[in-house]
Amino acid sequence: MSEMYAIRRTRLREQCNAAGNAAALVSRPANVRYLAGASPQGSVLLLGKTEDLLLCTGPPDERPSDGRPDETIRVQSLPGSAGDPAVAAAGLAMAQGADSLAVEEHHLTVARHREIRSVAPRIRVADLGGAVEQLRVVKDEEEISCLRIGAEIADQALGELLESILVGRTERHLALELERRLVDHGADGPAFATSVATGPNAGRRAHLPTDRRVEEGDFLSVCLGARYRGYRCEIGRTFVIGTSPADWQIELYDLVFAAQRAGREALAPGAAYRDVDRAARQVLDSAGYAEGLSALMGHGVGLEIDEDPQLAPAAMGKLDACVPVTVEPGVHLPGRGGVRIDDTLVVRPEADGGPELLTITTKELLAL
Amino acid sequence: MSEMYAIRRTRLREQCNAAGNAAALVSRPANVRYLAGASPQGSVLLLGKTEDLLLCTGPPDERPSDGRPDETIRVQSLPGSAGDPAVAAAGLAMAQGADSLAVEEHHLTVARHREIRSVAPRIRVADLGGAVEQLRVVKDEEEISCLRIGAEIADQALGELLESILVGRTERHLALELERRLVDHGADGPAFATSVATGPNAGRRAHLPTDRRVEEGDFLSVCLGARYRGYRCEIGRTFVIGTSPADWQIELYDLVFAAQRAGREALAPGAAYRDVDRAARQVLDSAGYAEGLSALMGHGVGLEIDEDPQLAPAAMGKLDACVPVTVEPGVHLPGRGGVRIDDTLVVRPEADGGPELLTITTKELLAL
Repeated sequence: MSEMYAIRRTRLREQCNAAGNAAALVSRPANVRYLAGASPQGSVLLLGKTEDLLLCTGPPDERPSDGRPDETIRVQSLPGSAGDPAVAAAGLAMAQGADSLAVEEHHLTVARHREIRSVAPRIRVADLGGAVEQLRVVKDEEEISCLRIGAEIADQALGELLESILVGRTERHLALELERRLVDHGADGPAFATSVATGPNAGRRAHLPTDRRVEEGDFLSVCLGARYRGYRCEIGRTFVIGTSPADWQIELYDLVFAAQRAGREALAPGAAYRDVDRAARQVLDSAGYAEGLSALMGHGVGLEIDEDPQLAPAAMGKLDACVPVTVEPGVHLPGRGGVRIDDTLVVRPEADGGPELLTITTKELLAL
Repeated sequence: MSEMYAIRRTRLREQCNAAGNAAALVSRPANVRYLAGASPQGSVLLLGKTEDLLLCTGPPDERPSDGRPDETIRVQSLPGSAGDPAVAAAGLAMAQGADSLAVEEHHLTVARHREIRSVAPRIRVADLGGAVEQLRVVKDEEEISCLRIGAEIADQALGELLESILVGRTERHLALELERRLVDHGADGPAFATSVATGPNAGRRAHLPTDRRVEEGDFLSVCLGARYRGYRCEIGRTFVIGTSPADWQIELYDLVFAAQRAGREALAPGAAYRDVDRAARQVLDSAGYAEGLSALMGHGVGLEIDEDPQLAPAAMGKLDACVPVTVEPGVHLPGRGGVRIDDTLVVRPEADGGPELLTITTKELLAL
C-alpha cells in the first residue's frame, strides 16, 4: 500500500517538474489523502525538492483523520501557534531550495495565497490546477474494491429498511436509521447526508429529510451511500407505498427507469461524458420533462462523492476504463413528487462484460 | 425576523461604504445565512449598489438548505450552465454601476478571484476581511434562544444515554445513538461529528469514534451538540465505567474540573480572550500537563461550531456581553486516556448573574 502512495506522488512530481515547477503544495483534503494516505484536519502536503512532508497542526492526539499517513512520508506537527500549514509549507519549500511552487488555486484562498507570497517572496507561485483530481479519475483495483464493499453495505442497509414498516415514520428517522445500518454493516460512516423524500418531496435531488411522515400512496425516494476506507459510493431508489401504484406513478417510474438504463448502456471506454448525459436526458426530454432536470445525469465517485467526471451537457472529455460513476436521472413534479434512480457503476470495456454495476438492489418498482 | 436580516445587511453595507466599497460579495456559507436567512448550497450574497441578491445555482427543487431565505431579499436562480455564482454576482455588481466590490479573501479561492477580475475588469476588487464574522460575534436574544434550545436537546440526549447500558457497546454505536436522540428531541441534526471516546481514547479532543467497546474501569468521554435553526452548541462530559473510579482517575478529573471552573469564572464582559484561556490553562500547566494541551481552551459558537472568538494564548480582543463560548479544557495521557469537560455559556455582566450556563448536565464525576 505504501508504495502506491509513493508512486502517485512520483507521477505528480514528474508532471510538476515537466511544467517547470520544482515543488507542489497540495491543500485540498481529498487530494492530500490520495497522495499521503491520510488528511488530518487542516493538513497540507508538500511535494518538496528534496523531501515530501505532511504538515499538520496541533498535537497528534487531536488530529481527526479517517486514514493513516503512508509510512513513506514524513509527518511534521506544527504547534497551534505556528499558523497556517500552507504558509509553513511554502517556507519549507524555499528552505529546500525550490524556486517555484505550484499551488491548488481552485482550493487555496486568496488570503492564504497572499501570505504564501509574502513569506516566500523569492519563490514563483504557479497553479497546479486540477492535476491531482485528474490523477484520481481512473481508479486502481484496490480503490474499486473499496467502492464495491461500500456499495454492498449500502445495498444491505437499504434492503433491511425495505423489510420494516414505513408508513407513519418521518423522513428524518428513516434517514437516521439508514445511517445507523450503514455503520452496523461496517461503513466508516455515510458517504454524504442520506436523503429520504416522501410524497411531494420524492424525486428531489439531495432533498434534506424533514418531519414529513410516510403515507399510503406516496412515492418514497431514498439516496444513500457508504464511506469505506475513505471511498464513497451512492445508490438511489424510488418505491411506492401501499398495495398498488397509480397509473401516473407507473408511467413516471418506467420513464425514469428507461432514462437510467439508457445512461448505463452508454457507459463505455471512449464514450464522451456529454453523450452519456444525452443518452439519459433525451429520454426525459422527449417525454416533455426538459425543464427542471438536473444539471447532470451522473458524476464520478471516489474519495469525494462528487468528483470528476461530470456527466453533463457541456462536459468535455471521454470515459476511460476503471472510472466509477453514478447514473442518476430523476423527474420531480412540483406538488406531486417524483422518481430518481441512481446507481454506481465502473466503466469496463465490452470485452470485460461492459459496465460493472456496484449497487445491485433491484430497480423494479416495489410497492411497500 | 425578516427585518433582522435587512438590519444586518444595512450594518454591513454601511461598513463597506465607509471603507470605500460600493458593493460586497459574501461567499462563506455561514455568513450568507447570517445575512440572508439561508445559504442554499453554492449560493452567494451580493450586497449591491441598488439591490441585494441571493444567487443560487440549479433549479430551486435541488437546493439543499437548512433555512428559508429572508423575504426582503430577491433570490435569483442561475441555470446549471451559468457557472460560478460568485462570478455572476461580480457581473451583476458591475451592471448595477458599482466601481468596487469587497470580497471575502479568506474564503474565496484564488481561481474564483481571478475569474471575477476577468469578468468585471472595471471593478476594483477589495477585501471584505472578517467583517461579517465580526458582526456575528455578539448574538441577539433570538440567536441565544436557539442556542439555549439546542443545549437543552443535547442535555436530554446525553441524559438518556447515561441511563442505558454502556459496557460492551462500541464508540461508533454510542455516537450514532446520541445523534439519533438529538434528532428525536427536535434538533435539525448534530452540530458536529459526535465524539465518543473510551479507555485510552478518552479525553482526546475531536476523537473520531472507533469500534472500541466500552470496558469496566474505562474513562468515557463524550462530546456532542445539537444544531437548532442553524445554531450549534457543544457539551462534553467524562464519566467512569464501573463501580468506583481509581485514584488517578479521581485526581485527573478533579484537576480538569478545577481548570474548567476557572475558565468559566473568568468569563465576563471586558475579559481578554487570552486571560480566559490562561485561567483554565494555568491550572493544568501547574500540575505538569503543559505539554500536549489544546491550542485553545474554548471558542465562540453560533452558526458555526468553531467561530470567533478563540480563547487561546495569542488571541487578541476582549469578551462582550451576549457572546456564547465554550470552555473545554482537557488532559489526555497517552495509553491511559483522559478527561475533557466542555460547556457552552453566554457571557453576561455580573449584574445579570454572570455567565449563563446553557449545558446543564451535571459535572460531578459519575460512575456508570
